[in-house]
Amino acid sequence: MSLLLKNTENYGNVYIEEGRIAEIDCEPYDSDATINAAKRALVPGFVNTHTHAAMTLLRGYADDLPLLTWLSEWIWPLEAKMTGEDIYWGTKLACLEMIKTGTTTFNDMYWHVLASANAVDEMGIRSVMSNVLIDTGGESGGGGGGDRAVQKETERLTRRLRSDYSSRVIPALGPHAIYTVSEESLAWAADFAREKDLLVHIHVSETEKEVSDCIEKTGLRPVEYLDRIGFLGPNVIAAHCVWLNDSEIALLAKHDVKVSHNPTSNMKLAVGRTMDYPRLSRAGVNVSVGTDGCASNNNLNMLESAKFASLSQKASANDPTMLPARDTLAMITKNGAEALRIGSGEIKEGAVADVLLIDLQLQEMVPLHNLDSNLIYASHGCVDTTICAGSVLMEGRKVAGEADILKKASEVAHDLAGRR
Amino acid sequence: MSLLLKNTENYGNVYIEEGRIAEIDCEPYDSDATINAAKRALVPGFVNTHTHAAMTLLRGYADDLPLLTWLSEWIWPLEAKMTGEDIYWGTKLACLEMIKTGTTTFNDMYWHVLASANAVDEMGIRSVMSNVLIDTGGESGGGGGGDRAVQKETERLTRRLRSDYSSRVIPALGPHAIYTVSEESLAWAADFAREKDLLVHIHVSETEKEVSDCIEKTGLRPVEYLDRIGFLGPNVIAAHCVWLNDSEIALLAKHDVKVSHNPTSNMKLAVGRTMDYPRLSRAGVNVSVGTDGCASNNNLNMLESAKFASLSQKASANDPTMLPARDTLAMITKNGAEALRIGSGEIKEGAVADVLLIDLQLQEMVPLHNLDSNLIYASHGCVDTTICAGSVLMEGRKVAGEADILKKASEVAHDLAGRR
Repeated sequence: MSLLLKNTENYGNVYIEEGRIAEIDCEPYDSDATINAAKRALVPGFVNTHTHAAMTLLRGYADDLPLLTWLSEWIWPLEAKMTGEDIYWGTKLACLEMIKTGTTTFNDMYWHVLASANAVDEMGIRSVMSNVLIDTGGESGGGGGGDRAVQKETERLTRRLRSDYSSRVIPALGPHAIYTVSEESLAWAADFAREKDLLVHIHVSETEKEVSDCIEKTGLRPVEYLDRIGFLGPNVIAAHCVWLNDSEIALLAKHDVKVSHNPTSNMKLAVGRTMDYPRLSRAGVNVSVGTDGCASNNNLNMLESAKFASLSQKASANDPTMLPARDTLAMITKNGAEALRIGSGEIKEGAVADVLLIDLQLQEMVPLHNLDSNLIYASHGCVDTTICAGSVLMEGRKVAGEADILKKASEVAHDLAGRR
Repeated sequence: MSLLLKNTENYGNVYIEEGRIAEIDCEPYDSDATINAAKRALVPGFVNTHTHAAMTLLRGYADDLPLLTWLSEWIWPLEAKMTGEDIYWGTKLACLEMIKTGTTTFNDMYWHVLASANAVDEMGIRSVMSNVLIDTGGESGGGGGGDRAVQKETERLTRRLRSDYSSRVIPALGPHAIYTVSEESLAWAADFAREKDLLVHIHVSETEKEVSDCIEKTGLRPVEYLDRIGFLGPNVIAAHCVWLNDSEIALLAKHDVKVSHNPTSNMKLAVGRTMDYPRLSRAGVNVSVGTDGCASNNNLNMLESAKFASLSQKASANDPTMLPARDTLAMITKNGAEALRIGSGEIKEGAVADVLLIDLQLQEMVPLHNLDSNLIYASHGCVDTTICAGSVLMEGRKVAGEADILKKASEVAHDLAGRR
């Protein structure tokens, strides 16, 4: 299967073959399919390194509440009632929104992962997928190594994710956080991930309470604790990382842990401060961007989250030169792709062809003094065409089957809310 | 001229006559025009209380720079070369973007105001318009009352704005700031505005430097200084108001000054802190929202600025309940309309018919657990139909003449950049 992007504004003709960018600024070769890309700019697909896709079902369901009320009275009770069918449609809706806004890969952590994987497989998008691993210290399988039943279920789901789906579904582990997973299961997850060459997706230091609780329990701060139990490594995606001190940043850098910055969610939930991008960046840590789930954002729009990232860093550092447009765009493309090891994230020959065509004929993209600036600061609805693994998922803003997804997801969400 | 909005999702049939909402949830009366509003929600048009519309021409021209470099080396030199023709096309582009994103009224301050007024009149939008008044103490007209030539030109432009344009063009005064206008001209502007019943649009306390410079020069903080010279009143729209102390907030409340909060611009330019909404709100001050110009935002999307307002206040107060969706929506509708005295801002019989139909069939508007939340937090591109003064400016996202505006504005902007 080959695809010619004809006459892009910034790279001329681009030839895609077998899911990769084969040639840039080339002759208009014969190809299985051709897209006229005139007046459109080619950019890498966006990579969302932290989300809970099916939480689209809870978009707008409970906002503007104190954190604990929000979680314990609104979100958790409804999550407990979600079925695989709910999560399938919630993930379909999420994939639709991501395709519309230019995300070609997302790093997901949620319940009923096989239902989500079905949705991802059908929608043609790429996803690093983990089932939430929560293990409150119970030992249903006996022995002293954490909850073996939870671990065994994780092993089973990982096998299924690897065997039953396309290569766009990338299995990973999702130990939720240090305060919801036992030390034994955290250590088990780290070992299992190394053995099976899996990414590990975890929430780290989102709130100050997580830090003070960890110190009280272990005498260590969260990243120090994760270091002590041998959890940290280059395959770990640590979401949030808001409350770090210098020694924790040094540990993240030493172990090449990847950090997912979630500025919109952090501001909306008022986690108390802005993630320290300048220090993480100076330490050489790979920082990418996540939207978090729709209950705490409330969308999956990576360009919007990128603007929040850049502006919140400028405000926090009191420096308008902080996190300029070019670097912010790299965070949502190259950095994310490196963190998730997917081979995309740059427009270059040999790169995986997860790419977008950007509509330059939109009012907020005019004038075009600077494409990076317009993408990050001006427009969040400028993606015209979304291509993942060389396949066209959206062209001219049309996605196959979208009306049906909206209808079904809406029905499922309202039915779910009624179960409360 | 009458217009029937048939079967809106939230108000049933709505009948508009002579530019006002005549009846809500009514029979489907015969009317000059009818719009099928099924699956669309009716909301008031958004009111942008601080912008410099024609700065669309500088969108993305210079970003991520230190404030003084940005202004003195990039923005001011180019502004000095702008012609009325440039500003006409820049304002056309701005009006197009505002219509597309649901703004029906904006409070503008820029050069060549008559060129902007031509654009506003043609585009059908509503605008409170002021020419920038800068008076550095020169006295070209002689005497001790400030620069009489600048004042006379302001009088002339005000007369022209009042006599030569539709009633959607609302003349106002635009003394730029305390550090760019002499005390005499500030006092003159206040008197002239009272005499002619005009709104006054001014930048106040955007940066800490403005405060320290004012204290050094006058012994007073900016709002205290404006109070002392008799400038403050209910007709004053004070943009930014970031650096206020309690006594200044009390003065703003006492004089019923209207405050325009510009969260996106404040973060992007790193003005050093977040405007103190909680205190202004508790003091009873009318706070609305502005986008500021496109060189410092870089768009005119009020729903995006509303999200920045809500989230930055939550983050700043460390409280996720701060500025909930409902109040934020009121800031960009009711509060703005009150500040600009335009009679719109609410869906009620008798209100000026500056209204929008919101597309509920978009992926980021699904599910519809809460319309206010979806508008403020989830979607910035959901405006389907824009109506100003009872006239339809956009229906189904199509605006008359948009391709031509994009082409001309783009040409003008690139030509302007070449003059540097």
